[in-house]
Amino acid sequence: MAEEAGAGSMAALEHPGWEPAAGEEFLREALRVLLEDAVRKGTDVTEKVCEWREPPELRELLDLELRSGGEPPERLLQRCRDVVRFSVKTGHPRFFNQLFSGLDPHALAGRLLTEALNTSQYTFEVAPVFVLMEGVVLAKLRELVGWSSGDGIFAPGGSMCNMYAMNVARFQRFPECRSLGMTALPRLALFTSCDSHYSIQKGAAFLGIGTDNVRLVATDERGKMIPEELEKEIQKAKAEAAWGGSALLSSKHRHLLAGIERAHSVTWNPHKMLTVGLQCSAFLLRDTSGLLQRCHGSGATYLFQRDKFYDISYDTGDKSPQCGRRVDCLKLWLLWKANGTEGLAKRVERAFACSRYLAEEVKRRDGFELVMEPEFINLCFWFVPPRLRGRESCPDYWSSLGKVAPAIKERMMRKGSMMVGYQPHGTRVNFFRQIVTSPAVTRADLDFFLDEIERLGWDL
Amino acid sequence: MAEEAGAGSMAALEHPGWEPAAGEEFLREALRVLLEDAVRKGTDVTEKVCEWREPPELRELLDLELRSGGEPPERLLQRCRDVVRFSVKTGHPRFFNQLFSGLDPHALAGRLLTEALNTSQYTFEVAPVFVLMEGVVLAKLRELVGWSSGDGIFAPGGSMCNMYAMNVARFQRFPECRSLGMTALPRLALFTSCDSHYSIQKGAAFLGIGTDNVRLVATDERGKMIPEELEKEIQKAKAEAAWGGSALLSSKHRHLLAGIERAHSVTWNPHKMLTVGLQCSAFLLRDTSGLLQRCHGSGATYLFQRDKFYDISYDTGDKSPQCGRRVDCLKLWLLWKANGTEGLAKRVERAFACSRYLAEEVKRRDGFELVMEPEFINLCFWFVPPRLRGRESCPDYWSSLGKVAPAIKERMMRKGSMMVGYQPHGTRVNFFRQIVTSPAVTRADLDFFLDEIERLGWDL
Repeated sequence: MAEEAGAGSMAALEHPGWEPAAGEEFLREALRVLLEDAVRKGTDVTEKVCEWREPPELRELLDLELRSGGEPPERLLQRCRDVVRFSVKTGHPRFFNQLFSGLDPHALAGRLLTEALNTSQYTFEVAPVFVLMEGVVLAKLRELVGWSSGDGIFAPGGSMCNMYAMNVARFQRFPECRSLGMTALPRLALFTSCDSHYSIQKGAAFLGIGTDNVRLVATDERGKMIPEELEKEIQKAKAEAAWGGSALLSSKHRHLLAGIERAHSVTWNPHKMLTVGLQCSAFLLRDTSGLLQRCHGSGATYLFQRDKFYDISYDTGDKSPQCGRRVDCLKLWLLWKANGTEGLAKRVERAFACSRYLAEEVKRRDGFELVMEPEFINLCFWFVPPRLRGRESCPDYWSSLGKVAPAIKERMMRKGSMMVGYQPHGTRVNFFRQIVTSPAVTRADLDFFLDEIERLGWDL
Repeated sequence: MAEEAGAGSMAALEHPGWEPAAGEEFLREALRVLLEDAVRKGTDVTEKVCEWREPPELRELLDLELRSGGEPPERLLQRCRDVVRFSVKTGHPRFFNQLFSGLDPHALAGRLLTEALNTSQYTFEVAPVFVLMEGVVLAKLRELVGWSSGDGIFAPGGSMCNMYAMNVARFQRFPECRSLGMTALPRLALFTSCDSHYSIQKGAAFLGIGTDNVRLVATDERGKMIPEELEKEIQKAKAEAAWGGSALLSSKHRHLLAGIERAHSVTWNPHKMLTVGLQCSAFLLRDTSGLLQRCHGSGATYLFQRDKFYDISYDTGDKSPQCGRRVDCLKLWLLWKANGTEGLAKRVERAFACSRYLAEEVKRRDGFELVMEPEFINLCFWFVPPRLRGRESCPDYWSSLGKVAPAIKERMMRKGSMMVGYQPHGTRVNFFRQIVTSPAVTRADLDFFLDEIERLGWDL
């Protein structure tokens, strides 16, 4: 190619650097793959949840390498189909591995539109709709917490929200920390439940507080902080509220979060129980004095000009430690508009009903054993294969039982029939941890779930 | 509704909690809105870039309030159309307001599929394709930096990447900081260019280092650190690389980043010059000793079980301070597969050609004045209305000129014809800051851009 016709030449600027019609056609075809393979087949109970391949084999199959030449549309569409095929179907009714299961059509529509509109949630001029919408959604979430006013912002995940909370708390007590740093402060201690999410430890390290200064407060056998330690209630609310927040929607179950309105801040992940899709994490603050802005703001002149022609209080991006920030409100807003608060409350109640049903079944069936009676929607249980039943007093009982869940998990992954997580906790050996949040799950799926564990673990 | 048929009852579990067919139909219709309104009309040069409304009017128009009842599909689709209508069209050829302009069909396809697959990039079991893909993409980016090995992770934005870099640097020198916190350390100083991105200051506050401990190193008139201060070169690379990184793709322009391979870490935002879409930010590290994992890892037992049946080195999520983490590699990977490294290099060269063309026009046209000769693809200039021309020596010249850009900006927003940013810098009053990254932009758009500024500012 002669230099004159090169991409960097002036002549090349006469026409766009891509072909819009061809691009649109590709997009149309890719959306067909999305609808057929990812949405329809991905949520079809007769299809596999995953198609397991060992990492080296999968790498080979996908031909991931990036080369100097481009590829034709048919090849790219095949790649899209392969990506979907070998990805885990988290919207499948038998995916129970994580809290973000389920594929809500309205939330998904909101997420796809968000991508197509591709803007940053920092100033009114580039995100007019979303600045207003974020404000309304955050106010609604605060209302459910029990606050008539306050502040807040969406953040990239619950761990980041928890870091924001820790940073804002530090700033409120020691505003000089922002300019002088931690070395100018006395050694701080951070109190949290010993069963709190690991983001508290991560945050303590990241923020320069130090993990040794995280004081883990003892919990009872249900993982709750010992109630006598009343002065630590506020920290507990911060650490525990992230995925349970959605229970606030149900008048029947919101008592589980009684007292949450006394917290100074709340982290709430609607991407979990509300099937909004990753990520949708709200950091809510009771403060009305502008603390969040003072704590995180820096007033970059190229974004937050003071001489704009509109009311710059609508430029909310400076409340975040991020600069560019994804739009996370539209998916939740559209889901809410579609279902109403009542519809969302029903979902929460349905999730509780699923847990209740499963808990009863676990108690009824031979060889299944609850780790503890569920209070929320997470159900923890062991499956005891026939070989181990009645042998609780044998010295190797617990170590043998601890190998059962990983072995069943391997079998279910290779078969692709379903997915569920397991973990040890304290002195308890590996148990299954089941959480149903998706409205796609029926009783038949729950029965299948227990039957399948029995089938896969029978001979272990 | 009788209690027995309520959402929380067992009977309700016989059927899914939503109607899959209706959901799919809604999704199909919403995708039509996406393709027609957001993509086709949103990138059509004959359409408006934005449809300005004052915030209270827009709030009224959109009816954002979240109520207890849900809404029918037709109403929701109208809401989708309204959201698109009043959103800024960042893919429009005349949107120059931010670095993320342009709507690439392949990247968009990757982003839409990412949403539909809705998984978290932390373990191989829930993100098998994306764990492998992220590894390949990061290796490719490192290769362009000039590293044959290393580490890295995608993060929610360039500011977060810069915070990771600062945290990892601190951890490498003072590993005890993780457990003991900053109070156990000597006071740290952080050297950066006085023109570096504001995320360095934000990060210093967030990480507990303190903004007063950020030492701003003087720059020359082009915003570069004074070269005599050689020992500060590494920090400079960290602070400056985020959006310029993509110039590494062009053999013609990569000399602008000469020496980048000597940096310990690099922040690279392919969501800017490569039109990948928000967000796609890579934090790259030269280290091969596992520093990133040691610095950020916490080994949560419910995600990173040690007794998994596959090689757990594929569970890369613990390298991030995040827990759940969005998939940010697919969109870049698909874009790269579609265009090849050569195609991406051409885009970079095209962006440079646009800047060069604009710079020549600005020099040629009366009343336009360059702030400085562009070296990269950002073009900073003033428009001087006829009234002010030749009056440079008048005492109020600069203050009058500083009011021109905001006034033109207001007029263009209300008209919706285009969008471009302005800012003051140091002693320089408000100037326009133009960046062309989208391949959709042609010479006609650049001519229109300058003509329109002239039209809008002529009488000021």
